Amino acid sequence: MFSPLIDELIHSLCCLPGVGRKSAQRMALHLLERDPEGAGRLVGALGTAIEKVGRCLHCRILTEQPVCYICSNQRRNTGLLCVVETPADVVAIEQSGTYQGKYFVLNGRLSPIDGIGPKELGLPQLFQRLRQEQQVTSQADEAEVEVEKDNANAPVTELILATNPTVEGEATAYYIAEQARQCGITVSRIAHGVPLGGELEYIDGGTLTHAFSSRRSI
Amino acid sequence: MFSPLIDELIHSLCCLPGVGRKSAQRMALHLLERDPEGAGRLVGALGTAIEKVGRCLHCRILTEQPVCYICSNQRRNTGLLCVVETPADVVAIEQSGTYQGKYFVLNGRLSPIDGIGPKELGLPQLFQRLRQEQQVTSQADEAEVEVEKDNANAPVTELILATNPTVEGEATAYYIAEQARQCGITVSRIAHGVPLGGELEYIDGGTLTHAFSSRRSI
Repeated sequence: MFSPLIDELIHSLCCLPGVGRKSAQRMALHLLERDPEGAGRLVGALGTAIEKVGRCLHCRILTEQPVCYICSNQRRNTGLLCVVETPADVVAIEQSGTYQGKYFVLNGRLSPIDGIGPKELGLPQLFQRLRQEQQVTSQADEAEVEVEKDNANAPVTELILATNPTVEGEATAYYIAEQARQCGITVSRIAHGVPLGGELEYIDGGTLTHAFSSRRSI
Repeated sequence: MFSPLIDELIHSLCCLPGVGRKSAQRMALHLLERDPEGAGRLVGALGTAIEKVGRCLHCRILTEQPVCYICSNQRRNTGLLCVVETPADVVAIEQSGTYQGKYFVLNGRLSPIDGIGPKELGLPQLFQRLRQEQQVTSQADEAEVEVEKDNANAPVTELILATNPTVEGEATAYYIAEQARQCGITVSRIAHGVPLGGELEYIDGGTLTHAFSSRRSI
């Protein structure tokens, strides 16, 4: 129905998540008819981003710098390392303002059926780093050498697993916990239960079961 | 929260219709993490489309050709001209396969509050063309010259108004009808009423009122 170039554009827009043929058609016509300027900006921004954005060498988050702004922030507590599935999770945690440690972004979750194993999530490098840090620390302890233990260079002492409470997320957390314990590191999992402001009436059974089995004495 | 380039990309994606900050963030991360190839295709397709797509000289639809494939189709009946608001409307009508005439795309509707008048919709050119065609026809009739009256070159005899049944759409249709009648052309409006397969129970009052007032004897 459309001319070849517009058809091609509609087809390309379908690669966006949650965008089908009809929405893509609407987007294409909007961009060409109403907002060619915005479309030009989008071409520029997307082109530059594809070219320059890579992963942070430390935490694997998406960034155009070799090391992201969180990893290069000297004020953050390097003793805490929070493992999350996606960069969006980092944004959500940062927005809550509750956490001052560093992150490790898996960019996925263990899912053998999709061919995603520990290697794809960068886990071997993580465990190697944890093991090295532990060795350095224990050697220093043995030699009773005064090691500078400021926040910025402290080795990881606690791994906080904040993967999603889905089947794959739980499996990923379990796998990481097992491996990290072998490195002699404290491993914790963020709490799951009834969200604040939630009403019991509308909470699903799985969450309620978990909330009961994880109850704490007050 | 994100690095500047990613922030810029998210901001640019917000120009898409129906896409807010949260969806744009999801799209940006999806493109960069999961589908850089699709993102590259999108940059190419959008860049080429902005550069090359313009309006058809006859019907104002979006196309990369000077004259679109409908206007250059010799088999279509030029005696009928259907006025629609957007290229998407043309697609909808073409998909129904019911109409064999030509189109005129307003790319909008009269909306003085947004600064959209007849000029922005290309109406002066349309009326001028209709008037010229009428003059040529009447001169030919007066001189009793045999004018070739095949479909491809026949002057417009009926203007079918298919703008949307909204306040602005109706006002646009009324304005065009007034002007076209002065050119001596038959003007019609597509029927509005209960859609086929619709249930009266769920039809809004306005549509029902219209359906009753426009009833036909059978």
